[in-house]
Amino acid sequence: MAPLPDGFSYAEWNATYNALSFGIAAMGSATIFFWLQLPNVTKSYRTALIITGIVTLIATYHYIRIFNSWVAAFEVSSKDGGDYAVQLTGAPFNDAYRYVDWLLTVPLLLIELILVMKLPQQETMGMCLKLGIASALMVALGYPGEIQEDLAVRWFWWKLSMVPFCYVVFSLMIGLSESTSKQPSPAAASLVSAARYLTVLSWLTYPFVYIIKNVGLAGPAACMYEQVGYSLADVMAKAVFGVLIWAIAAEKSAVEESGKLLAK
Amino acid sequence: MAPLPDGFSYAEWNATYNALSFGIAAMGSATIFFWLQLPNVTKSYRTALIITGIVTLIATYHYIRIFNSWVAAFEVSSKDGGDYAVQLTGAPFNDAYRYVDWLLTVPLLLIELILVMKLPQQETMGMCLKLGIASALMVALGYPGEIQEDLAVRWFWWKLSMVPFCYVVFSLMIGLSESTSKQPSPAAASLVSAARYLTVLSWLTYPFVYIIKNVGLAGPAACMYEQVGYSLADVMAKAVFGVLIWAIAAEKSAVEESGKLLAK
Repeated sequence: MAPLPDGFSYAEWNATYNALSFGIAAMGSATIFFWLQLPNVTKSYRTALIITGIVTLIATYHYIRIFNSWVAAFEVSSKDGGDYAVQLTGAPFNDAYRYVDWLLTVPLLLIELILVMKLPQQETMGMCLKLGIASALMVALGYPGEIQEDLAVRWFWWKLSMVPFCYVVFSLMIGLSESTSKQPSPAAASLVSAARYLTVLSWLTYPFVYIIKNVGLAGPAACMYEQVGYSLADVMAKAVFGVLIWAIAAEKSAVEESGKLLAK
Repeated sequence: MAPLPDGFSYAEWNATYNALSFGIAAMGSATIFFWLQLPNVTKSYRTALIITGIVTLIATYHYIRIFNSWVAAFEVSSKDGGDYAVQLTGAPFNDAYRYVDWLLTVPLLLIELILVMKLPQQETMGMCLKLGIASALMVALGYPGEIQEDLAVRWFWWKLSMVPFCYVVFSLMIGLSESTSKQPSPAAASLVSAARYLTVLSWLTYPFVYIIKNVGLAGPAACMYEQVGYSLADVMAKAVFGVLIWAIAAEKSAVEESGKLLAK
């Protein structure tokens, strides 16, 4: 929990500021989108869609907090029409919001994915429990390293956190690959396959953003890349991923409803 | 990312202030209108109408932010009952909100238009992808010029941004022209044709507002015309355009429902 480094340029400060505001707008609007779609899917997929919106709602809350914390930590002003100068106010920028957010949202993200797969109830319970605990452990093990400047200690926690990370990512890969063939329509199968690729792509971003400080970058630039990187990864992993969850739920609902009509 | 010019008159400052507040009122009320209309259209058009409201919701958020940023950047007061004096506080006025807004809303705007056309699923996916990427590229290429005072650099980015701009506008013109003849009723056809003209009219406003600073205007007047111009163009392209999207959805829903009644 080292204080922010001094010497931010206005461009670096502003890029972070705008990435955080983008996070609020993207997560907030995604939340409303998911919940407005609730009447358009069958009952079986509503819990998955409600949780999808809960994930982006929790993220909206934390992005508002992170944005306000960022604003409070700096004084930005132009004296006599000159370029903007960025100075630390001394107020803390709270790193922990992201980890509290992930602790809540990452297990929920996995649960929304498992629910939309519509596996047998026993299997659903088992997977939610296993992946939920592993992903919470992953986030908890990452935090002690995030608040460290000592690179050896950062690497230590990064490696520990990568154990549950790999377990979750591989479980998803195998689980989603098996599930693709069982989907009720080719459109649903191709959406599940898209969800699979998006999961790998967006999840893999996090360990790389985490080690920005470990690979030589330091000071304001490292801080800016970290904030912008996490914000983009979050929007991909929660809002864009959620749109895929909704698309899967909508497609499977349509297939189920046309099946019922035919049966009549 | 140059600081605001000094020397705003109260009239210039106030015109911008009121245009931004108009933006909040127009976008916010449009959002509620679109969502309250959801039960009145058939399921096929609900996603288009939900996205129409998401676009104006994101715009409402950004207009609130731009308005607050504008207010914080100035101190306006009248000493001893004299005329209002407008002074810079030194706080930054954030140019980037508009671009973050457009990055999210312009692809969504195009998607709402494509969805309400109700093309075959394959064609819908292809058009959403092509036009979505082209329009995001258009916004991203505009930004480096917007934050520049150097006119040669402004022209350079303006020209680059005009390439995807022309691609999107021509695609819409041709696509909407073909689609007009396929609409299920004369009323729907004339609404699609209105959407076509509104698209050209509102979209063409942006490149002209962008080059206000390039054609000799400078200082507070250029800044005021830019803010007022973008605000009016945004209300046309998002709220008024959205009303047309709703009208198309409502008309096509009515035609579909009377078709179902006849079939019974």
